[in-house]
Amino acid sequence: MSEIESQLTLIKRGADELLIEAELVEKLKSGRSLRIKAGFDPTAPDLHLGHTVLINKMRHFQEMGHRVQFLIGDFTGMIGDPTGKNTTRPPLSREQILANAETYRDQVFKILDPERTEVCFNSSWFDTLGAAGMIKLAAQHTVARMLERDDFSKRHANGQPIAVHEFLYPLCQGYDSVAMNTDVELGGTDQKFNLLVGRELQKHYGQSPQCVLMMPLLVGLDGVNKMSKSLGNYVGIAEPPKEIFGKLMSISDDLMWRYYDLLSFRNNVEIACLRQETVEGRNPRDAKVQLALEIVARFHSQRDAQAALADFEARFQRGVLPDDMPELEIAAGGVAQILKQAQLTASTSEAIRLIEGGGVRCNGEKVTDKALVFKVGDIAVLQVGKRKYARVRIV
Amino acid sequence: MSEIESQLTLIKRGADELLIEAELVEKLKSGRSLRIKAGFDPTAPDLHLGHTVLINKMRHFQEMGHRVQFLIGDFTGMIGDPTGKNTTRPPLSREQILANAETYRDQVFKILDPERTEVCFNSSWFDTLGAAGMIKLAAQHTVARMLERDDFSKRHANGQPIAVHEFLYPLCQGYDSVAMNTDVELGGTDQKFNLLVGRELQKHYGQSPQCVLMMPLLVGLDGVNKMSKSLGNYVGIAEPPKEIFGKLMSISDDLMWRYYDLLSFRNNVEIACLRQETVEGRNPRDAKVQLALEIVARFHSQRDAQAALADFEARFQRGVLPDDMPELEIAAGGVAQILKQAQLTASTSEAIRLIEGGGVRCNGEKVTDKALVFKVGDIAVLQVGKRKYARVRIV
Repeated sequence: MSEIESQLTLIKRGADELLIEAELVEKLKSGRSLRIKAGFDPTAPDLHLGHTVLINKMRHFQEMGHRVQFLIGDFTGMIGDPTGKNTTRPPLSREQILANAETYRDQVFKILDPERTEVCFNSSWFDTLGAAGMIKLAAQHTVARMLERDDFSKRHANGQPIAVHEFLYPLCQGYDSVAMNTDVELGGTDQKFNLLVGRELQKHYGQSPQCVLMMPLLVGLDGVNKMSKSLGNYVGIAEPPKEIFGKLMSISDDLMWRYYDLLSFRNNVEIACLRQETVEGRNPRDAKVQLALEIVARFHSQRDAQAALADFEARFQRGVLPDDMPELEIAAGGVAQILKQAQLTASTSEAIRLIEGGGVRCNGEKVTDKALVFKVGDIAVLQVGKRKYARVRIV
Repeated sequence: MSEIESQLTLIKRGADELLIEAELVEKLKSGRSLRIKAGFDPTAPDLHLGHTVLINKMRHFQEMGHRVQFLIGDFTGMIGDPTGKNTTRPPLSREQILANAETYRDQVFKILDPERTEVCFNSSWFDTLGAAGMIKLAAQHTVARMLERDDFSKRHANGQPIAVHEFLYPLCQGYDSVAMNTDVELGGTDQKFNLLVGRELQKHYGQSPQCVLMMPLLVGLDGVNKMSKSLGNYVGIAEPPKEIFGKLMSISDDLMWRYYDLLSFRNNVEIACLRQETVEGRNPRDAKVQLALEIVARFHSQRDAQAALADFEARFQRGVLPDDMPELEIAAGGVAQILKQAQLTASTSEAIRLIEGGGVRCNGEKVTDKALVFKVGDIAVLQVGKRKYARVRIV
């Protein structure tokens, strides 16, 4: 495989769509350090692994010698939602935004190489663009094309209001690429329209249009829904090592390989080897341990990762956690009810008796509260005595 | 009639629509000097009577003690057409705009009282509004409401492009009213949508919404099409006294009363008297002379008006211009052809003979050029010998 081909394979790993591949190949062939952009909200970040998918991809680019434009959208952040209808998007002061940017910096530099990262604020060009510049920018797109955007077209068809300024935001995002002369912009699949606006504006301003790499949303620990704090199926990057380790050990084998693609910095060959060994009979738990170690080490340290592994093994009595542990979907409810439904106990009263006797563990820890309730989205390995296990997902 | 009622009658004279009348009555009752706005393009003006309809209405307001906001839209003028597709709307420099504004000033102060007129430039607020302010402004209106505007809805339905910035212009016009805290805005009927945007924005900014007075387009000398330079059916306010006088004397009696409403500063009672006398048998030409005198005096002087009248009467041999002069619509062509079609001569060869003999007059002046051609839109009183007349309109 040529150098370019191998770069391209790594770039495309886990990605949903790359536009336009041939153009990216040309850019890679030029040998110059490319400008790789991704934009982030200036709202207070409390990142989970789902947020890191884009950042990990930027890291891939950095490893190939390219430079990252980590763009903080403070301009629109300072405007907030001008209709005043969206209370989750209040205007932020410059101080708040700078404080949030600091938090971002602390978190993302656990992934990105600071030497190859430029943190940009789009207020630096929009503050001087002026009302006239905004009008000229708005002249670059037609109403009909805006209404082609999926969400706009649905809202328009359903008679739901679209405020005029919402048409300006895709143009602002596109203009960011012009201001930074971006080579490649990363974004979610839902960003496709906005990312393509950037291409058109760059052409209009006489620049070579950016390539666009769309990454999927990360599926949460439940293997079904996208990872999100509100669904409870997430791994926060600021969580303690043991939490991160335990949560990652709870995922299904299929999901593990998806996480390898999107979250691991191992190269494609290493991942292919691990996969091959597993196909040939190695316990998939070994690969899961490797992944959990890598992630914990990234956000804490190598030492923390080893400690988390030791703790995990101690709690789950090294070697006894069965490979064929049943996975069950169970309705929300009290712990006794769930133990019974998981067929770990014959009845709820037996369950309560066993809890009182200290014979029930949840994620390796003794359950002491009979009134413990499991909510939708919770995932847990339940253990009764030494030999009865089940992984349950509350639905 | 109460003072307020009589003000209202004068305000509504000639107008197409007033919104909201009850609100205007309240404003008038307050007894304060109202702010009366009309906006004008900063393109080089060469005003004809059609342009003066709005200005005359402003003058009416001034006579009642109110103040005029003569707004020059230099902000958008300096942007021009950002799509670059409209070559008739190139961006203007600040110098050009200021020069044009001077020309405006010279022309409109023949109508307006400078003491009660504030000449405003909207760049003074848009230059400081910024891109963020423009986004906030755009948030005040929905796409669906914009698409309700007649011309937008037609273009959208026909698949003709609407550039996004075109949605911003009505908001800019409305924001002008906010910046100037306008009480009444004047505009053409075609401006209704934009004028109402101003009302809504003012409410949003906590102001009392402006009333909106829509004036009709002035019909040209032909009595059919709107007055316009390109149709040739206009009276330029910078034309020589004799021209203005002669052109106004050529209009039909019906049109004359319309012109009285829209162009005369005589009050309603005076006009009603003139009309009554005409109904009772006075020659309508007398009222026409009064109108022509008033207009010439406005743009030149009382003395010029009298001289123009004297010249007109001399040329048309005082007293012989018949009251029942036929009005004919005739296709464009050479003078001989037109004389024949107007049945002023039996044939084109007779027409040519008469021209050579000095027996044909056009608007009172001897025709010397046999090759004279009449174009669509031309209006002329043709005279053959002493007793044969026709007023022709070339179609």
